[in-house]
Amino acid sequence: MPFRVRILPNDVVVFAEQGELLSKVIQRADLSFETECGGQGTCGECAVSVVEGACGNEHEWTLSDDWSAIRNILACLAEICGDVTVKLSQRYHVYVPTASDSPTSTTWNDFGISELSPLTRKIVLSVPEPGIQSNTSDLDRLMAAIAGDSAQDFSLSALQELPQAIRQSSGLVTVTVAERTQGDRVFRIESGDTSGRHYGLACDIGTTTVAVRLVDLKTGHILGTAATYNDQISCGADVISRIIYSQKAGHLDELRNRVVCTINKLIDSLGQSCKIVPDDIYSAVLSGNTTMTHLILGIDPRFIREAPYSPVVTVLPILSARELGIHIHSEAACFFSPCVGSYVGGDITAGLLCLAQKRKDHGAELFIDVGTNGELVIRGNDWMIGCACSAGPAFEGVGIRCGMRAADGAIYSIDVGGDGKEIVWKSLGTGLPSGICGSGLIDLVAGLLASGVVGRDGRFSVEKHTRFERAGNRLEFVVVDGAASSNGENITISEADITNIMRAKAAIYSATSLLLKNVGLSCEALGKVYVAGGFGSHLNIENAIAIGLFPDIARDRFEYLGNTSLQGSYLALISPESRKRLSEISKYMTYIDLSSEPRYMDEYMAALFLPHTNEDLFPSTRREAIK
Amino acid sequence: MPFRVRILPNDVVVFAEQGELLSKVIQRADLSFETECGGQGTCGECAVSVVEGACGNEHEWTLSDDWSAIRNILACLAEICGDVTVKLSQRYHVYVPTASDSPTSTTWNDFGISELSPLTRKIVLSVPEPGIQSNTSDLDRLMAAIAGDSAQDFSLSALQELPQAIRQSSGLVTVTVAERTQGDRVFRIESGDTSGRHYGLACDIGTTTVAVRLVDLKTGHILGTAATYNDQISCGADVISRIIYSQKAGHLDELRNRVVCTINKLIDSLGQSCKIVPDDIYSAVLSGNTTMTHLILGIDPRFIREAPYSPVVTVLPILSARELGIHIHSEAACFFSPCVGSYVGGDITAGLLCLAQKRKDHGAELFIDVGTNGELVIRGNDWMIGCACSAGPAFEGVGIRCGMRAADGAIYSIDVGGDGKEIVWKSLGTGLPSGICGSGLIDLVAGLLASGVVGRDGRFSVEKHTRFERAGNRLEFVVVDGAASSNGENITISEADITNIMRAKAAIYSATSLLLKNVGLSCEALGKVYVAGGFGSHLNIENAIAIGLFPDIARDRFEYLGNTSLQGSYLALISPESRKRLSEISKYMTYIDLSSEPRYMDEYMAALFLPHTNEDLFPSTRREAIK
Repeated sequence: MPFRVRILPNDVVVFAEQGELLSKVIQRADLSFETECGGQGTCGECAVSVVEGACGNEHEWTLSDDWSAIRNILACLAEICGDVTVKLSQRYHVYVPTASDSPTSTTWNDFGISELSPLTRKIVLSVPEPGIQSNTSDLDRLMAAIAGDSAQDFSLSALQELPQAIRQSSGLVTVTVAERTQGDRVFRIESGDTSGRHYGLACDIGTTTVAVRLVDLKTGHILGTAATYNDQISCGADVISRIIYSQKAGHLDELRNRVVCTINKLIDSLGQSCKIVPDDIYSAVLSGNTTMTHLILGIDPRFIREAPYSPVVTVLPILSARELGIHIHSEAACFFSPCVGSYVGGDITAGLLCLAQKRKDHGAELFIDVGTNGELVIRGNDWMIGCACSAGPAFEGVGIRCGMRAADGAIYSIDVGGDGKEIVWKSLGTGLPSGICGSGLIDLVAGLLASGVVGRDGRFSVEKHTRFERAGNRLEFVVVDGAASSNGENITISEADITNIMRAKAAIYSATSLLLKNVGLSCEALGKVYVAGGFGSHLNIENAIAIGLFPDIARDRFEYLGNTSLQGSYLALISPESRKRLSEISKYMTYIDLSSEPRYMDEYMAALFLPHTNEDLFPSTRREAIK
Repeated sequence: MPFRVRILPNDVVVFAEQGELLSKVIQRADLSFETECGGQGTCGECAVSVVEGACGNEHEWTLSDDWSAIRNILACLAEICGDVTVKLSQRYHVYVPTASDSPTSTTWNDFGISELSPLTRKIVLSVPEPGIQSNTSDLDRLMAAIAGDSAQDFSLSALQELPQAIRQSSGLVTVTVAERTQGDRVFRIESGDTSGRHYGLACDIGTTTVAVRLVDLKTGHILGTAATYNDQISCGADVISRIIYSQKAGHLDELRNRVVCTINKLIDSLGQSCKIVPDDIYSAVLSGNTTMTHLILGIDPRFIREAPYSPVVTVLPILSARELGIHIHSEAACFFSPCVGSYVGGDITAGLLCLAQKRKDHGAELFIDVGTNGELVIRGNDWMIGCACSAGPAFEGVGIRCGMRAADGAIYSIDVGGDGKEIVWKSLGTGLPSGICGSGLIDLVAGLLASGVVGRDGRFSVEKHTRFERAGNRLEFVVVDGAASSNGENITISEADITNIMRAKAAIYSATSLLLKNVGLSCEALGKVYVAGGFGSHLNIENAIAIGLFPDIARDRFEYLGNTSLQGSYLALISPESRKRLSEISKYMTYIDLSSEPRYMDEYMAALFLPHTNEDLFPSTRREAIK
């Protein structure tokens, strides 16, 4: 007899068996409910309020005062033992991110691609009909007609289609050939000229968000883009938690299925909105970090985090969609952007592909992709060096009391005036705000620092302030009053939140600094800084420098690129030059493992200040410089 | 509420739903219950006796007197409408044929094969462990170690095996590579040296019987052979009935599943008896006639029997076991012996492979493979011409009142003495006989002809004979009295039976004659006649000539070869020379379509005598010659 679990504020009812983990039950409601620690009961991300009923194995978790009236427990440890009603934190309100920021009008011509040539090609042929004098087999006649092409191999499904296809339009057939690692393979034979129906998929497999772009491979046009949460989130917020999670029996399969299902859902919804049958999607390019690449393939990622940090695969053969499990034509050619090392993956090689046309002779350039992991690459005219650091998910709103992703209701821009007394904010969507996303958090910390509410150590530096409120033992700064928020609760920031943001920015900055030292360059030598990743397009570079996230150089050298992993996947999907360039990027990039650099911890500790322990590194942000 | 269908004499009870066809229900009992006409109610093969109860849509069918006491109905038309008990004809007693006649001691050395080289190879490699200085991916290090080999492509399942395999035995791994139509593919990576575990499958897909041979690919040794009925039999006895059957919705899939299941059952039982895991079987060579080849692939065979008789495929790419559906390693390489035309298939090219070493300079040679279809090939020093004829299944016991296959209880040899009064017979197995198989039928007809009981027109030529009995309006010659038969019923032959045998032999003889005329040769020019196929090893050549099945030439020129389709598959499995030779055979053989030869019907009609209308063609069989 299953129990009823009612989930507020969405008011969804899920049925559960005795002993089931509450977190798993909530996940069944498809709420992208996540636990940063992978269900170990340490991060508190899964804390929920018990409104009615009770669970077994309840671990209470102290949240802010707003929550104190009701019992907050950890869903990842609590076990169902009866009917129960729980209320989720505002972070979990159902939200599905939509199209990426990249303009859909972007086409391949903008990237200097000279030849439109996807991984699959369609050949229209006229096959002579059989006659008494030439009763050779259908396949023999097809192969004679195809002679100029290198395709000699055929899938069984194509052979099964052959007799009908060849007879329906007096021998006019369209043959679809997939490029494989060794040799080509005919995998579809259709009657008539179907060369206009030829689609492909570009896919960015992010730790947090998966984005997919549907492309017309005949014209190179982008038909649509869709994104959603990576359904793996509930198994851990970052790659390390996911690797740990993957080590239990059955979990590697679970992780694989979760991300494959995420992609399949996107394909279904994109296919429907673009009126395209998934079976007409013939090739795909997928880019993800090294862990994501291992997980979607069901390859044990364990050795990525065990010395000597050797991944199982970096460069992959072309696989079939059937092998991958994604729901496009089962024989479709799936190409993975090559990884460089354990922590510099295919999302970065794909990202660098977007810069290929941007290279002008202005010295060294820095590419920063800020996500749950931060990846950095410096390149000169004939060299490239990359590294990664664990920034944590703070900029994506995770681990921050009122943090959230750049979704409807997120405050993305904040202006702090009047010694912190006047706050002007902007939020996404038309409703009341419900939290603060990465770019908003950067603005907020920079504003509080400039106004003196927060000191260089990240602690509140004034004892009394009209916007302070006490939450248990902690002081919190109220950004938006409950009266103006979507759920009537204050939107606040605490010292603990600011510490998390400082850790994230310190990880990125110290990695930048160390990477520059490795190549013997100063910040000033950087002619260009390309910023990619999860901030959304509202990132205020000035404020990012003010808190010490980015080096203090001329603002006009920064350029925000959006989701370069998706864009690079798109370029590789349509162009053999791009695929070749990807391979060169992965081959020629020098990879530095910062975890084995003894100086990294010193650099990191020094960066745990606003903007930095060494103020000389940020001359333009000094109070006197600003004034 | 299902009804009980009790099936005698096996006394098996099967449950069935209202309206189900009785024939389908009986087939569920796995009794290889067959209908020659594919369930059209015309052949009478499926007639069963109703012992108790009744069916809907009963069509009575008159059988011999033995049966007249009880109601005989056609199972292919009768519908279940209640509990019923039926009794099958003796032909359907459960029998599973065992190993083929070919001696298992045959090894590849006997066939002048110089190189043992299967479609898959195992490479034992030592892959260096990763180190801080060389933390390249597992795959990169494996590929560096594999460098001398051409394999560059990997299946996803192999990549999934890689991390564990590479770490379990200090880097010692065994990589299995499959030859594909274009390029090779690594599909298995195992820890340690497993080169000793490398098996292959040779398979003869016959219209009636499927035979499989398990081979140790490291040594070339045959580990075991198994055979069973093709489970398609219930959908029609010959290729034409099966093609017709395949045209209804869902039937092509059904036919495909039936033969695939037949093969899988054989693999299971062979694997168990040889203690070999099917997952260690890495390659397979399959040989079948053109229709069987189409059906196992699920390719519409319709155009084989529609002018201009153009098959969809003759030469096939190497397919994976997964595509085929056979239960060996899913990525195993499956090679099909190439077909020549609509009615000369891979079983014949494989058969001719067995003759490759036999060719000596004794002029033209004839190869005859007698099955449900008869195929004939004449070859000279540098030419080869082949054709096929529809012999019908008489020599396999189908369409003959007391006919049966060469199985336990079959009379395989008959000596007729004393003007037909004394019959000496030999049967297979230790029990009482239950029917007569092909070689026994040939002996019987030859003996009855020699003793004057049957005339040259195939009719009984004496009015009264002690061994005659009357069955309804018909006269039957009693071979074995009921007292000495397995089921107490007389084993007999009727004029109708003799007519069926004459039709079969006339089809083979007239095809032989026409083929010889096509190349301008007489029988005497044949230095050698190789006989392959379904007779079993008990074929009496003297008697086969006496009834006019084979041409009347010196007996020592005949050689019986057994199942050459299976043997040829085996040779192709282990030797690239053989695979190359197969391709040459299919390419260089001239195929004659007898159905478009206007002289064929004349030749056939002339051969519908014992031994022939023109006695001069059989000088040694004349009564004066024998005496």
